[in-house]
Amino acid sequence: MKHPSEQSPPPGIRARLHEIIFESNTPAGKAFDVALLWAIVLSVLAVMLESVGPIRARHGETIRIAEWVFTVLFTLEYVLRLFSVSRPGLYVLSFYGLVDLLAILPSYVSLMMPGAQSLLVVRVLRLLRVFRVLKLVNFLGEAEVLLTALRASRPKITVFLGAVLSTVVIMGSVMYMVEGEANGFDSIPRGMYWAIVTMTTVGFGDITPKTVPGQFIASMLMILGYGVLAVPTGIVSVELAAAARHGINPEACPGCGAEGHDVDAVHCKFCGTRL
Amino acid sequence: MKHPSEQSPPPGIRARLHEIIFESNTPAGKAFDVALLWAIVLSVLAVMLESVGPIRARHGETIRIAEWVFTVLFTLEYVLRLFSVSRPGLYVLSFYGLVDLLAILPSYVSLMMPGAQSLLVVRVLRLLRVFRVLKLVNFLGEAEVLLTALRASRPKITVFLGAVLSTVVIMGSVMYMVEGEANGFDSIPRGMYWAIVTMTTVGFGDITPKTVPGQFIASMLMILGYGVLAVPTGIVSVELAAAARHGINPEACPGCGAEGHDVDAVHCKFCGTRL
Amino acid sequence: MKHPSEQSPPPGIRARLHEIIFESNTPAGKAFDVALLWAIVLSVLAVMLESVGPIRARHGETIRIAEWVFTVLFTLEYVLRLFSVSRPGLYVLSFYGLVDLLAILPSYVSLMMPGAQSLLVVRVLRLLRVFRVLKLVNFLGEAEVLLTALRASRPKITVFLGAVLSTVVIMGSVMYMVEGEANGFDSIPRGMYWAIVTMTTVGFGDITPKTVPGQFIASMLMILGYGVLAVPTGIVSVELAAAARHGINPEACPGCGAEGHDVDAVHCKFCGTRL
Amino acid sequence: MKHPSEQSPPPGIRARLHEIIFESNTPAGKAFDVALLWAIVLSVLAVMLESVGPIRARHGETIRIAEWVFTVLFTLEYVLRLFSVSRPGLYVLSFYGLVDLLAILPSYVSLMMPGAQSLLVVRVLRLLRVFRVLKLVNFLGEAEVLLTALRASRPKITVFLGAVLSTVVIMGSVMYMVEGEANGFDSIPRGMYWAIVTMTTVGFGDITPKTVPGQFIASMLMILGYGVLAVPTGIVSVELAAAARHGINPEACPGCGAEGHDVDAVHCKFCGTRL
Repeated sequence: MKHPSEQSPPPGIRARLHEIIFESNTPAGKAFDVALLWAIVLSVLAVMLESVGPIRARHGETIRIAEWVFTVLFTLEYVLRLFSVSRPGLYVLSFYGLVDLLAILPSYVSLMMPGAQSLLVVRVLRLLRVFRVLKLVNFLGEAEVLLTALRASRPKITVFLGAVLSTVVIMGSVMYMVEGEANGFDSIPRGMYWAIVTMTTVGFGDITPKTVPGQFIASMLMILGYGVLAVPTGIVSVELAAAARHGINPEACPGCGAEGHDVDAVHCKFCGTRL
Repeated sequence: MKHPSEQSPPPGIRARLHEIIFESNTPAGKAFDVALLWAIVLSVLAVMLESVGPIRARHGETIRIAEWVFTVLFTLEYVLRLFSVSRPGLYVLSFYGLVDLLAILPSYVSLMMPGAQSLLVVRVLRLLRVFRVLKLVNFLGEAEVLLTALRASRPKITVFLGAVLSTVVIMGSVMYMVEGEANGFDSIPRGMYWAIVTMTTVGFGDITPKTVPGQFIASMLMILGYGVLAVPTGIVSVELAAAARHGINPEACPGCGAEGHDVDAVHCKFCGTRL
Repeated sequence: MKHPSEQSPPPGIRARLHEIIFESNTPAGKAFDVALLWAIVLSVLAVMLESVGPIRARHGETIRIAEWVFTVLFTLEYVLRLFSVSRPGLYVLSFYGLVDLLAILPSYVSLMMPGAQSLLVVRVLRLLRVFRVLKLVNFLGEAEVLLTALRASRPKITVFLGAVLSTVVIMGSVMYMVEGEANGFDSIPRGMYWAIVTMTTVGFGDITPKTVPGQFIASMLMILGYGVLAVPTGIVSVELAAAARHGINPEACPGCGAEGHDVDAVHCKFCGTRL
Repeated sequence: MKHPSEQSPPPGIRARLHEIIFESNTPAGKAFDVALLWAIVLSVLAVMLESVGPIRARHGETIRIAEWVFTVLFTLEYVLRLFSVSRPGLYVLSFYGLVDLLAILPSYVSLMMPGAQSLLVVRVLRLLRVFRVLKLVNFLGEAEVLLTALRASRPKITVFLGAVLSTVVIMGSVMYMVEGEANGFDSIPRGMYWAIVTMTTVGFGDITPKTVPGQFIASMLMILGYGVLAVPTGIVSVELAAAARHGINPEACPGCGAEGHDVDAVHCKFCGTRL
């Protein structure tokens, strides 16, 4: 995931700002990132605390001021990011660019369109800043291995989820037929919600089978869920083991351009060219 | 799983139709399959929405018309399938032949025998069309690996489920004895339902032990379930690893003797010799 | 697990009976085992159905007759087993000998000491016959691998369960302190029951934290349980993989008597003697 | 984890006492440890039983006497430990030294400051003695393997928990918005508690989504939790496999060059050559 601004480093003050804001391998860059993370965590905490009735009643004013301080700080940071990259357009449209904008926009929108409802939306959108914390995680080798394993597992997990969802649709319909509206299964989507709650072994108990055939079918579904729970675990285990065993060489073959060579490979396995 | 009609390809228009309806490696065949999948998903959605009270009250007429449109389309498809295969008898009795028939039959049956009850049965049977979607999945190599692993795990999982069911029967009886009808355990089958809900860690909470010995026995069962949950996961993990390992070429390089080449490797990854 | 009677095979009719009753590699022996399994399953079903109120009210007499027929059959079987083994004392005191006796004894005891309570005990003890079904399972190689893996995992799982139980005791006490009797945590054992229900992810919901600190501690416990759930699964996976990889040679070294050699071993790994 | 007193063994009676109290490889030392473990278990049981209302009402006096007997015994043990080590200061400040002190201190504090509340705190703190039981566990090789695997998994599990907590914060806020106070989601922290209960598949059912969009979002979260449950399991499996593999001798046989010998092997299992 190369950042657009890395392609042509901007000169002078912009280069320096870019180093501080986007990189974390200089002391200043590291200090900036740590400060930003604390600011994000504190701003999220402020949103959380404001949602608690008694706290809002007593410290509402203080929290709202804190929220505006964070909004101003993040706005300043957003402007500096725009200034320090060589192609601002690419940054604005990138995933983190959009998240950075969404984290500050709602506060300003709430000025023009006041109201409790819209303010609540503001708070939730701000929480997306939490994702920015994960940006640092990308640099950790451990996270890389985890992501590689998950990426490799994706097709198998997709096939698996397809099978799970088919079961959910059919079991939800069967339970709607068997139990009926009197026992809480008042529509097929409601039955599907129950089937998901049951298959994932969450089991809220807000809707439960009351009839003998319903409880028998539910028992079958639970034992089935018990067995299939093993499948994603097995998939991820195998992929993690594979990812740990041989880190795949990220470079393509200079001869044929094929990718996915083992790190210990000396020759391309397809054309024999020395890597 | 060779399809009967593949053995002696029918000539002319029938061969062309067969290619479109049964195969998906021509542009027309692929377009047909994609259109069919969308039609199935939409018809299932129509059945789902009709089961929701408020939607049925307002859009019931529209949904019923849509259902008949899909029924006519699927009937046409069924007739074309019958026409395009060389041995229609084998197709009618095959698994997908029966599902295709069951997906359209109930609509016609509901004409002769009207009534809410039979109509509901119609909708549920139609949902079996979802299985047809899985037909395409067979072509995916990932699904093949998953199925191979599950097939290989079957005997071990059967033995495991036998042990689980024995535990369920005994624990269900013990809880029926200990808790009794007053606390919701009003028969051994009800106790078994509770034991399955507990061992699979679903835990609805519709029936829970109230007495001290009952809660003690339940705690034992839960910790037992916690331990045995590991068994199917371990089984599938090992089988998946074995299924994935078979992707490794068992032959050594003729040049340097190195092993562990991928099955798609043409050259040795260490010395470059042609395998 | 050598059966005592295998050491000195009894002659004539006893040898024949032994072959039929204890072995399953002759047609007669196999037929006997299959018939016995069906009788056990039917007798367990009879006990189950008698516990269901409406069925007992209508078919109680029939079921009680069926139960006595099974009791007489199993008594006959027990006498034949005693007759056909060369050392009946060893059989009577073996695990299956005791289970066989417990499966018939309570019916006779209920004749001398009538009463609903004791009759109920009879039914539950009879269900232990289910364990006899597992006797056949021993012959399946799959079950052998499973048992080997579980045996090998036992020390690790014991250590793990010790850590889990310590957590349960401490968390149960903490929740008893934090939530108190008003919220259902009316004693430390009750708190421990809740901690087990929560850590095993069963989550009945019959007792739940109501206070903010209680919900915070509960959240910590759930995330902890989420992580430790991985440990037994990992243990069993690794042991299953090991058991599958190299079946351990069951024979001891003729030189030093050491056990646990790999199946592909030609020499003892401790003294070098040829195996 | 060398104990400070091991560095310079104290002479005479102190050395003898140290051997009995801190070591478990002499008969006297083993007897002391076993007796201590039983005393800890019984004192914890006394605290548990005192918390049960009816038992406290009938046997309260007996239990309180037992608690004081254990307090005196543990005080004696603490004084002996202080006497037998060469550097008591290091012992007092070590983890087990602090736990040993905390296990006896509250009983004495309760003499000066009587009252139900403080007495309850006393009982909970005493339960920390359970950790002392784990001290012995350190000597078991099995626990060592388990701890090695968990230590190695820590960075991956930290990254994973970070992702889980981010999801919990965002889903908790979304559900607070969607369901609102009327359906039990009365603050973002409450929504996060619900998200943890759901993602860990505990599913108490004390707070459940009531609206259609809420149930849809909850379904998504459950299926997500179903998939991510696989990640920690996979991590621990792989690390356990790695920890178990290190039991394999990495050196080849000098006689035949075969690899994969167990670490305890003295002779090559294939050719019998001394390794």
